[in-house]
Amino acid sequence: MDIRLIKAPGENTLRIISERSKYKIENKPGAIGLVQGKLIEMISASDIAEKSVGVEVFDVRGSCPQNFVLLAIVGDMEEVKVALENIRAGGDLRNGNC
Amino acid sequence: MDIRLIKAPGENTLRIISERSKYKIENKPGAIGLVQGKLIEMISASDIAEKSVGVEVFDVRGSCPQNFVLLAIVGDMEEVKVALENIRAGGDLRNGNC
Amino acid sequence: MDIRLIKAPGENTLRIISERSKYKIENKPGAIGLVQGKLIEMISASDIAEKSVGVEVFDVRGSCPQNFVLLAIVGDMEEVKVALENIRAGGDLRNGNC
Amino acid sequence: MDIRLIKAPGENTLRIISERSKYKIENKPGAIGLVQGKLIEMISASDIAEKSVGVEVFDVRGSCPQNFVLLAIVGDMEEVKVALENIRAGGDLRNGNC
Amino acid sequence: MDIRLIKAPGENTLRIISERSKYKIENKPGAIGLVQGKLIEMISASDIAEKSVGVEVFDVRGSCPQNFVLLAIVGDMEEVKVALENIRAGGDLRNGNC
Amino acid sequence: MDIRLIKAPGENTLRIISERSKYKIENKPGAIGLVQGKLIEMISASDIAEKSVGVEVFDVRGSCPQNFVLLAIVGDMEEVKVALENIRAGGDLRNGNC
Repeated sequence: MDIRLIKAPGENTLRIISERSKYKIENKPGAIGLVQGKLIEMISASDIAEKSVGVEVFDVRGSCPQNFVLLAIVGDMEEVKVALENIRAGGDLRNGNC
Repeated sequence: MDIRLIKAPGENTLRIISERSKYKIENKPGAIGLVQGKLIEMISASDIAEKSVGVEVFDVRGSCPQNFVLLAIVGDMEEVKVALENIRAGGDLRNGNC
Repeated sequence: MDIRLIKAPGENTLRIISERSKYKIENKPGAIGLVQGKLIEMISASDIAEKSVGVEVFDVRGSCPQNFVLLAIVGDMEEVKVALENIRAGGDLRNGNC
Repeated sequence: MDIRLIKAPGENTLRIISERSKYKIENKPGAIGLVQGKLIEMISASDIAEKSVGVEVFDVRGSCPQNFVLLAIVGDMEEVKVALENIRAGGDLRNGNC
Repeated sequence: MDIRLIKAPGENTLRIISERSKYKIENKPGAIGLVQGKLIEMISASDIAEKSVGVEVFDVRGSCPQNFVLLAIVGDMEEVKVALENIRAGGDLRNGNC
Repeated sequence: MDIRLIKAPGENTLRIISERSKYKIENKPGAIGLVQGKLIEMISASDIAEKSVGVEVFDVRGSCPQNFVLLAIVGDMEEVKVALENIRAGGDLRNGNC
């Protein structure tokens, strides 16, 4: 599972993401977190992110609405960071326990 | 074969799964089990889950109705857990015997 | 090449297979054998299975009618077992001789 | 590059191949040779087979007419064998020289 | 992540790229930088390139508008070089820090 | 990156290539060079081939016009050989320098 944090994403980056998801750019967010992995990992990560405070979670789709190629987590810098940390920790716990 | 257990799945997680399968969210389930692997593994896992008590089994589809990218097992926490354990055990037995 | 044997397949398992092939469920079969591998392996396996006694052979298709993602062998328990054994033996012979 | 030789292919095998290529079954052939590999390998193999005597060569297509997933070589047993040997030898020569 | 620099790209190269992106050839650019990798890497690289001076950034698409198979960075030789160096450095930093 | 040289390509080989590209067979060429690799490698190779003397360069497409699965270089034997050598050398230089 690959995880990236983009600080103050540029216009083009926001466009690339919004063209491929339900994400609509209204205000430029402080940060975007990205998670790429197996479908099962991204659904689990999505559930963890959804339970974090202050972020919005989007599934970035590939060549078809039903695809799911990337998870995008949008919010302020600190909140996105916490969501990504929760994903990293949750991922480890789950691998260990289940 | 990857196996994950999501406790009390969030709205967004349920939406991601139901948008890609015949699963309709009526009551928020206690847990969702996910299984991802080769098609042949997921069909075998699906058969084992189907024979477990108290769970519903769905094939999550990718870019096309005929695809099959993930198995979702919906039910109460304990019942989903048992289904996942049966899959894990069944998978081992089958690899050994057949 | 992966080979699996499902004894007394459940309704859901039969539905998953028949939704993706020309297989029509009339009577619940005693067993289903599944073979997944490279296209060239599955065509060879299909030819061996076709020459076995008492089984029906179907190509399970993925996202498109021309795809071929899995071989399904339907019949009674003993007959499906023999077909799978012939495939395993034939596969070895062919690798060795050709 | 995988190479297989099917002696006296069955009806179902011929159907699977002809459904995915321009090959039309008129008389049951003595043998079918199959070659699966990278596109560049299959085009080279196709050229070698085309220059062999007494065989017909078809590109088996996957999910789309432009795809090319398998090479089928149809003819009498001995002629198909020679074509496959030429492919194996030609492939080695080319790897060595070019 | 693969990175290439093409000096004074030819007509055919420009056509191949513009046929698969929103890039419109008006003046022949001094150089084109290409970046190929995982989706998450290319989005991060795109954000870094976008923040470089004097270059334009395009997502080259594959078989479908929503796909993203290659990042193209168009501009003068020195400016494209700097953008590619920033991507390489940024990629390392991100891997290290996040 | 795989590179192959086909001397005096047969009718079927030319058909397979022209069905999947803009290449129109008018006179049977002396040779066809083929290059298969990552998209980024094939675009770089295409640019080098385009700058070689006396050859025509085509992108062979897969299941969709925007795809690019193989590079075909058409011309006389010696000219195609030189183009392939330039690609091999250019590829090495680029890997080393950039």
